[in-house]
Amino acid sequence: MVVRTSSSPSTPAGPAPAESLEALRRAAPLTQCITNAVVTNFTANALLALGAAPAMCDIPGEAGLFAGVAGGVLVNLGTPTAEQRDAAREAVGAGTPWVLDPVAVGALPVRTALARELLAARPAIIRGNASEILALAGSGAGGRGVDATDSPDDALEAARALARETGATVAVSGEVDLIVDAERTVRVIGGSVLLTRVTGGGCALGAAMAALSAVTAPFDAAIAASAVWAIASERAASVSRGPGSFAVAFLDELAALEPSDLRSVGIETERADTVETGVRR
Amino acid sequence: MVVRTSSSPSTPAGPAPAESLEALRRAAPLTQCITNAVVTNFTANALLALGAAPAMCDIPGEAGLFAGVAGGVLVNLGTPTAEQRDAAREAVGAGTPWVLDPVAVGALPVRTALARELLAARPAIIRGNASEILALAGSGAGGRGVDATDSPDDALEAARALARETGATVAVSGEVDLIVDAERTVRVIGGSVLLTRVTGGGCALGAAMAALSAVTAPFDAAIAASAVWAIASERAASVSRGPGSFAVAFLDELAALEPSDLRSVGIETERADTVETGVRR
Amino acid sequence: MVVRTSSSPSTPAGPAPAESLEALRRAAPLTQCITNAVVTNFTANALLALGAAPAMCDIPGEAGLFAGVAGGVLVNLGTPTAEQRDAAREAVGAGTPWVLDPVAVGALPVRTALARELLAARPAIIRGNASEILALAGSGAGGRGVDATDSPDDALEAARALARETGATVAVSGEVDLIVDAERTVRVIGGSVLLTRVTGGGCALGAAMAALSAVTAPFDAAIAASAVWAIASERAASVSRGPGSFAVAFLDELAALEPSDLRSVGIETERADTVETGVRR
Repeated sequence: MVVRTSSSPSTPAGPAPAESLEALRRAAPLTQCITNAVVTNFTANALLALGAAPAMCDIPGEAGLFAGVAGGVLVNLGTPTAEQRDAAREAVGAGTPWVLDPVAVGALPVRTALARELLAARPAIIRGNASEILALAGSGAGGRGVDATDSPDDALEAARALARETGATVAVSGEVDLIVDAERTVRVIGGSVLLTRVTGGGCALGAAMAALSAVTAPFDAAIAASAVWAIASERAASVSRGPGSFAVAFLDELAALEPSDLRSVGIETERADTVETGVRR
Repeated sequence: MVVRTSSSPSTPAGPAPAESLEALRRAAPLTQCITNAVVTNFTANALLALGAAPAMCDIPGEAGLFAGVAGGVLVNLGTPTAEQRDAAREAVGAGTPWVLDPVAVGALPVRTALARELLAARPAIIRGNASEILALAGSGAGGRGVDATDSPDDALEAARALARETGATVAVSGEVDLIVDAERTVRVIGGSVLLTRVTGGGCALGAAMAALSAVTAPFDAAIAASAVWAIASERAASVSRGPGSFAVAFLDELAALEPSDLRSVGIETERADTVETGVRR
Repeated sequence: MVVRTSSSPSTPAGPAPAESLEALRRAAPLTQCITNAVVTNFTANALLALGAAPAMCDIPGEAGLFAGVAGGVLVNLGTPTAEQRDAAREAVGAGTPWVLDPVAVGALPVRTALARELLAARPAIIRGNASEILALAGSGAGGRGVDATDSPDDALEAARALARETGATVAVSGEVDLIVDAERTVRVIGGSVLLTRVTGGGCALGAAMAALSAVTAPFDAAIAASAVWAIASERAASVSRGPGSFAVAFLDELAALEPSDLRSVGIETERADTVETGVRR
């Protein structure tokens, strides 16, 4: 984990990650996940460990109703069955903040068409790897399926364009997490590479952003979730023998994390031409 | 774990949990699970660890046939796709004892209609949290999605009414597990709160009831499964760092459990106006 | 693990398992899995730990396209929804080596019909337990759902017939893994019985064979995957308390495995009337 010290005045900012996590723990927001078959269990367990209340309500006739009472909604396009596609259409119309995770968009036509269609319902946050963000913005060919073949900074311009076009916060996951809206850029520094050796690390991060969107603004939710992932994955890596024990320890660390632990995450903020790097409190 | 000592004569009773677990280990009953996408893996692993033979056969055209050869069937309504709904309709007609787990029933219309329809096929056991049992009995508005917002004793009358209406054993999961039929009430005391911090603890308990239904009467199957869950979760909690390691340890403890270990579970039995509290042997 | 020493001259052979694993680690082949809901997470994590790049692309309209860019494809019939059945039909026509795992074929009509239909598209490898192989070859009634009720050697003749009829390598999993083509028979000796106490051990083995098919011939891919499973499961068993911790340790061991570790696996080769037993290098 790299911690950089600020040498410039603070820009106006929302709540720090610590406050966002505290708010989540108080509210235990009902978080609806329409997500892929590979990661449902890990995602639900990550949300429970974080302090949210997950519910994987993903069938037509129920998904829209449920989204109406949920605090946040995740739409992850990893394995989008016909029923999930209809459920997603229902859920994004409920007026609840929702996160789009456009898994493997670009190369695969069904999910690509759906992702483009869903954008009209204005996601609060779009979270993906660099290749997915490039593809969704129309600037790339997509990655190799679920793998990113580009780095987050390659996707900065595409992320900004997407943020301006849709009004969403765009979070590009990678070695450094990039969080972008129409004007601001934040980099969250840290985390363990073991997160990429376990399926669902990124998908569950999208779910955490949905949960945090129930208690804070999308931009701050994306930063807080990324900060939680950075710390929890570093701690888990330090007590793991490999990817199997890492996934288990990651859930333990999510549950053990105190809001104050987030004060040490390295967060770098840019706005317009000023760059502020520092430990965000 | 609270162990209470009996001060009244024993009521006529079925096999003790220890004998039920022994019977399950001998028979390794084929246990069919039509269950939600979040918990399939954990449920299958819990059944294997317990000593049963799980099979998640949940498509139309096969589910009914398979139920005919299975020893017990679980129908869990957590994420009921159209195919699973038809599979459930087939399976409950096979004449094999089956368990209904009406996840999040009440608030959500598709599963609520299905749960009511399936009741006509007379489940051996209905297992849910207090909010779900209240909703299914028509006495409550349902919980907050998958979370109970009521305590088991709030649901005692509803559970009794449901048992009398359907002929089923009704198991209400919570801090204390309540198991009810038309006349009897049993409380199984113990267990770890960590079971509620991991997805699938309750869903897998329903599956264990289905497996035990293959070897003993529904009322005794529900008691035995709850006793197993109480002991295994307490033991797992004592060696866990958090919810991730708890889920892993729970499977280890299920596999390590000896029938004689169940002799120490606190079980409280009531019938009519007499109350017997004691360690059931 | 039994290691037998050769006393006869070597038969012509493909790359040893160590070289196949090395090739996989270099290529990190994109491995598409159309697999059952119970094991998707474990399968993806096993492939990641092994060094492959899993993608569970299983919907019609995408599965065929994706198979065209994947290095290997798995079609596992554990919970074959209508969409998965169509996705499988698309994927097997892409010209990419694919593995058929005919889970519970025989007793259940939908998957049995599909398995027979898919055979026309010539799988590179068919992997199953003895009962499944017997049923698929038309020589058995099928097992008890997902459980084998026959031993691998009971299925040797059926496996050979199936290999000759389809051109596939046939891998029969059991205490000893039997790998057969039209002429050759290999037995891979070793492994832990704990693999059968965890759901998905066999299903993920099929996925590993698909990944290895991207970098070596099917017969050698099946041997290498079985050798990896034997060593990793033995090592995992030696550090586990039960099935829960075993599944976690198995993923750790897959990731920690070095190609040179495979040199100690006991592999027995037969061709025609000569039998060679030895440590394959």
